[in-house]
Amino acid sequence: MKKFINNPENVVEEMLEGMAAAHSDELRRLPGWNVLVRKDAPLPGKVGLVSGGGSGHEPAHAGYIGENMLDAAVAGEVFTSPAPDQILEAIKAVDSGSGVLLIVKNFSGDVMNFDMAAEMAAAEGIDTEQVVVKDDMAVENEEDRRGTAGTVLVHKIVGTAVEEGLDLQEAAELARHVIGHTRSMGVSLSPSTVPASGKPGFTLADDEMELGTGIHGEPGMERKKIQPADVVAEELLNNVTADLDVKNGEEVVVLVNGQGSTPLMELYIVYRKAAALLAGRNISIHTSMVGEYMSSLEMAGCSITLLKLDDTMKKYIT
Amino acid sequence: MKKFINNPENVVEEMLEGMAAAHSDELRRLPGWNVLVRKDAPLPGKVGLVSGGGSGHEPAHAGYIGENMLDAAVAGEVFTSPAPDQILEAIKAVDSGSGVLLIVKNFSGDVMNFDMAAEMAAAEGIDTEQVVVKDDMAVENEEDRRGTAGTVLVHKIVGTAVEEGLDLQEAAELARHVIGHTRSMGVSLSPSTVPASGKPGFTLADDEMELGTGIHGEPGMERKKIQPADVVAEELLNNVTADLDVKNGEEVVVLVNGQGSTPLMELYIVYRKAAALLAGRNISIHTSMVGEYMSSLEMAGCSITLLKLDDTMKKYIT
Repeated sequence: MKKFINNPENVVEEMLEGMAAAHSDELRRLPGWNVLVRKDAPLPGKVGLVSGGGSGHEPAHAGYIGENMLDAAVAGEVFTSPAPDQILEAIKAVDSGSGVLLIVKNFSGDVMNFDMAAEMAAAEGIDTEQVVVKDDMAVENEEDRRGTAGTVLVHKIVGTAVEEGLDLQEAAELARHVIGHTRSMGVSLSPSTVPASGKPGFTLADDEMELGTGIHGEPGMERKKIQPADVVAEELLNNVTADLDVKNGEEVVVLVNGQGSTPLMELYIVYRKAAALLAGRNISIHTSMVGEYMSSLEMAGCSITLLKLDDTMKKYIT
Repeated sequence: MKKFINNPENVVEEMLEGMAAAHSDELRRLPGWNVLVRKDAPLPGKVGLVSGGGSGHEPAHAGYIGENMLDAAVAGEVFTSPAPDQILEAIKAVDSGSGVLLIVKNFSGDVMNFDMAAEMAAAEGIDTEQVVVKDDMAVENEEDRRGTAGTVLVHKIVGTAVEEGLDLQEAAELARHVIGHTRSMGVSLSPSTVPASGKPGFTLADDEMELGTGIHGEPGMERKKIQPADVVAEELLNNVTADLDVKNGEEVVVLVNGQGSTPLMELYIVYRKAAALLAGRNISIHTSMVGEYMSSLEMAGCSITLLKLDDTMKKYIT
C-alpha cells in the first residue's frame, strides 16, 4: 500500500481537518464530529440539505457543500456508513425550522443509519424527509441498485431548488423525480485499497476489465478482456439509455465520472464517443460534466451517468 | 497498460474532440489544429494569453481557458512539446491587436518552439512576449528548473490582470514577478505510462518514494523509504519555504497538487500538515488550492506549490 497517510485509523479525521482548514471561507467542522457544515448554515427559511456516507469518494460529499448545493456532509470511515448520532448532529446544525432533506445513497448501512437519525430528529421536533439514490443500473433488482455518481446531480438540482424556496415536501418530491430519471453504469480496470485493510478490494488480470463494479469495488455484472474506449463507452451508454428509455428528441445531462486514477484524458475520450452516439440518436446534451465527481480512492475506471431532463428539472440547472 | 483509449496515436486528437464537445459553451477548437481557444477570442483591447505544452497534464492547459484565465491552449502529443506552427495558429487566433503573452513551462522543447512561434508571429506583425515558468526547485541549477503546478497560478493571476486592462509589457512583467515568487516540489509513489510507449516511465520499489520527480517522471533528487504523510509534507514545505525565503508575517497561496492517481483524501492530509506548519511559523494562507491542477497521467504523487504574495499580485486574486 503506497499512500500519503499517517496512522491509517486517522485518515478521515485528518482529511476533514485538511478540508476545514483549506475551505474555511465556505465550511466549518462541527466540533467533535466528522461532519462538515456550510459556514452560514442554518439559512433562515431554507430547507436544509444533508448527504454523506462512507469516506473515500471525495469530492463527495463535503466538496458539494455550498450555495445551491448541500448544507452538510456526514463522513463515515472509509467505505463505511456514518453513525446515526453523527447524522443527527448534521441535521440539527442545518435545520432552520424548515426541515431537512436527507440524500442517501442506497447502501444498507447508510439507509438504516440515516433512517435512525431521522427518527431521533423527529423526537427532537425536527422534520426530515429521506430520498434514496439508486442510479447504478448494473444491479438487476431495482430495489437493490446502489447509489453512485448520479447522487451529485441530486445535490445540484435539489440544492438550487431549495435555495429558490421549495419546501421540504416539494424538495423531496423533486429529488425523487431526479432519482427516477438518473441512471449510471461503471467499468473498472484496477481496485482501490482501503487504508485500514492495506489490501486491494479485488483483483483483475492485466488484460481484464469489470463491467458494473460498485463505488466500493462491489462485484459487477461481467469480467471481460479490455476493449477500446469507444467500445466501452458504447456499452455503458447503451445500457444506460435503454434502462432510462431515452428517445429521439429528448434532452440529457451527461456525467462521465472518473473513479480515481483514470486520467482526465481518458475520461474525455470516453465522453467523445458517448456524445457522438447521443448526437447520432438525436438526443441533445443540455449539460456535460467530465471529471472525478464520485471517486473510489485510487480505483481505475469510469462511469457514465445520464439524467433524462424535463422542464421541472431544467429550471434548476444553473 | 490498462487505459480507456482507442489507437494510442490518436489520444490527443480524441481528447481534444471530447473537450471541445463537452465545453462548447466556453471554447472551440481551431479547425485542423490541436489548439483550443476561448469561444469569444480575440477580445478587443485585451492582451491574449496562450499557454500549452505536452498533453497528459490535464486539466492543464485547456482546462484553464476562460474568463480571467487563458485565451488558448496548445496541445502537443503526450509529454511532447507542441510544434511552432501550431503555437503560431493559437497566437493568431487570440490576438486582438494588443499582443499575446506566451506562458511557457521550462522544458527545452517548449522554450524552443514557443520562441520560434514568437518569431513567426513577429514576421506577421503580431507582438508577443514570453515568460518561462521554472517553479520546480527540486532542480539545483535555477536556469534548468522545470515548470510545474505553479504555472496555474501564473494563468490565474495574469489572466485576471489582462482582463482588467494590463498591456502586454505590464502583463509580462507581472508574470515574471509571479514566477519569481513561486516554488514547487513534488514526490512520487508510482509512475505513469505514455500510451504510445506502453511502458511505465520509471520504476520504484513497493516501499519507495522519489522526492523531486518532474511532471513527466524526470528523475528527482532522492529515493527513500516511504514516510508518513506528515513527514512528506514537512519535507516538501521546508524546501519550498526555504528557497522562497518566506518569513514570519508573510502571506502565501498554497497549492497541493495531485499528480494523477493520488486520492483527494491524501492531498487533504498533506495540506493539513502544511497548513499547520505555516500557521506555526505565523505565515498566513491567503488562498488554498487542493486537487489535480497539473497532472501527470496516472502518476501517484503530489506536490506543494507556494506563492509568496505581495499587494501587486493580491489584487488580481479573485
